[in-house]
Amino acid sequence: MIISCPPKVLISEVGPRDGLQSIKTAMPTPAKLRWISALAAAGLKEIEVGSFVPPKLLPQMADIHDVVAHALTIPGLHVAVLAPNLHGSERAFEAGVHKVTLPVSVTNEHSMANIRKTTAQMIEEVREIVALRDARFPGVQIEAGVSVAFGCTIAGAVSDEETLRMCVAMAECGVDEVGLSDTSGYANPTQVRRLFRRLQSELGGKAGGAHFHNTRGQGLANVVAALEAGVTTIDSSQAGLGGCPYAPGATGNIVTEDLAFLLEAMGYDTGIDIDALIAARAILAEALPGEALYGHVPDAGVPKGFHYADGRVPSAPQPEGCLLGAAQ
Amino acid sequence: MIISCPPKVLISEVGPRDGLQSIKTAMPTPAKLRWISALAAAGLKEIEVGSFVPPKLLPQMADIHDVVAHALTIPGLHVAVLAPNLHGSERAFEAGVHKVTLPVSVTNEHSMANIRKTTAQMIEEVREIVALRDARFPGVQIEAGVSVAFGCTIAGAVSDEETLRMCVAMAECGVDEVGLSDTSGYANPTQVRRLFRRLQSELGGKAGGAHFHNTRGQGLANVVAALEAGVTTIDSSQAGLGGCPYAPGATGNIVTEDLAFLLEAMGYDTGIDIDALIAARAILAEALPGEALYGHVPDAGVPKGFHYADGRVPSAPQPEGCLLGAAQ
Repeated sequence: MIISCPPKVLISEVGPRDGLQSIKTAMPTPAKLRWISALAAAGLKEIEVGSFVPPKLLPQMADIHDVVAHALTIPGLHVAVLAPNLHGSERAFEAGVHKVTLPVSVTNEHSMANIRKTTAQMIEEVREIVALRDARFPGVQIEAGVSVAFGCTIAGAVSDEETLRMCVAMAECGVDEVGLSDTSGYANPTQVRRLFRRLQSELGGKAGGAHFHNTRGQGLANVVAALEAGVTTIDSSQAGLGGCPYAPGATGNIVTEDLAFLLEAMGYDTGIDIDALIAARAILAEALPGEALYGHVPDAGVPKGFHYADGRVPSAPQPEGCLLGAAQ
Repeated sequence: MIISCPPKVLISEVGPRDGLQSIKTAMPTPAKLRWISALAAAGLKEIEVGSFVPPKLLPQMADIHDVVAHALTIPGLHVAVLAPNLHGSERAFEAGVHKVTLPVSVTNEHSMANIRKTTAQMIEEVREIVALRDARFPGVQIEAGVSVAFGCTIAGAVSDEETLRMCVAMAECGVDEVGLSDTSGYANPTQVRRLFRRLQSELGGKAGGAHFHNTRGQGLANVVAALEAGVTTIDSSQAGLGGCPYAPGATGNIVTEDLAFLLEAMGYDTGIDIDALIAARAILAEALPGEALYGHVPDAGVPKGFHYADGRVPSAPQPEGCLLGAAQ
């Protein structure tokens, strides 16, 4: 069955940033560059390639200039980075990135712990970053990534109103879009559906994408709810790279491979070749020995009879299935 | 926030059957009995405790009579089993179980491989099983668990019409309810939503629950879609026990612990105590050394500020969260 014009969803790959910053090992730069190229070749159209942060804070990101320079040579790739402040944003703008994501916490507690600024100070910082962009780097897109939007490890429950207040403040600062981040895996589908609908009704065209962590295994369930609310950009990380050193087995972002399968199976066109995406894991396995690589689709393959939303069929055969007596 | 009358969802625990039949080790009977008691004590109201199948085919189920006898002593527990044929069903009825699930494949290919009968032969068998029940064991509930309802490892894609045809045949045989099983992890949320809605419109009150395998990591995403379609019974397995010996890392059923958290966080009352449920894993860890125990909530705990749908708060404190520089 070929669907003539399936709806599109953009998977924004954040593994090279959110994944790599959350593990102890620093990935060698040449491997990072090969990895980013392989991800782009698998059809990922936007990659958050790193953070502009002090190397002494996150040594894994010390090569950010080389990484950005390489990513910018990949035709058609939308090169995104994270920057937590004015200084980092300025360096990012100067490096020529296409998009800067600013992490903005809903709660003061998380804001202080994460970026050592109150939320009020961060709003002021965002205003300055937008002013700098407007004055000197007009083509660069700015997204506010609203952290702990669904709950906070320090402050606990976060109300819709608190989150929406910060989102509106961000829109008023002049950012291009405002996404919602489930920083610690607190979100549930009911909340996701409700909050993204309210975000769209408050911000219209500035309502942005969804950034889910799979801490409690709820990531793809939350994606289903986000899709229902009309979200068209979803962040994820190859192999669910990342996690939390204090919670063994707690994965980082949702797994790009499993997300791509979910979306394509549901009829959303991502442009991704799942087999090529899975092949890119070999670079991670080699460069990050001992690091857990998550994901189910890489083990199980796509189902027999699977086709992509745009009608393509997989290039590789699927692994053999299994049958047992009295299966259900 | 206390919700006065939250909707209820029944989690039907299938670990002692679908989980244990899919792993190589046979769990010692005393551990099995302790495990089933612990699951019931954690609030699970229905447990599929095993299969009535020939011990030479599934030695893991050789102690089914002892297991059923024990389960029937647990107050309030709805004791379910699987039986693939008339002979097994008769033994199950005689043992005094409350419910028998019959695995009925949509495709001839899967039916022959799984139970060595064509689908037409199986329909005839179900008719005889219902007649036996009606004649001699009128109180026992019969569910048809319609296998490969969303796709088949042997036959490939399965159309809604093929699946619904078998469901209608089952209802006409006189079973009490007809559930849909995603035997090999083929389902996607779009398909789940559509097919359960059609099932309900075809079968009304005989439309049954959802049985998902997490082979491709899509299990909880499919649950969200099933809930939207009005499904109120979901099968799952503690620790996602099971899997497929030919696909390393491919888990079995969806994980009860993560499902219970999903449902309670969404506002569905399951009656389960997640901490007690997690504690029951220790019995598995001891009795099945080396067996992978899946699940995210057991590692991460419930979020700070979490409460159950009925207003209860967790009995145990949550593990410490983590924060890193420039998290999103």
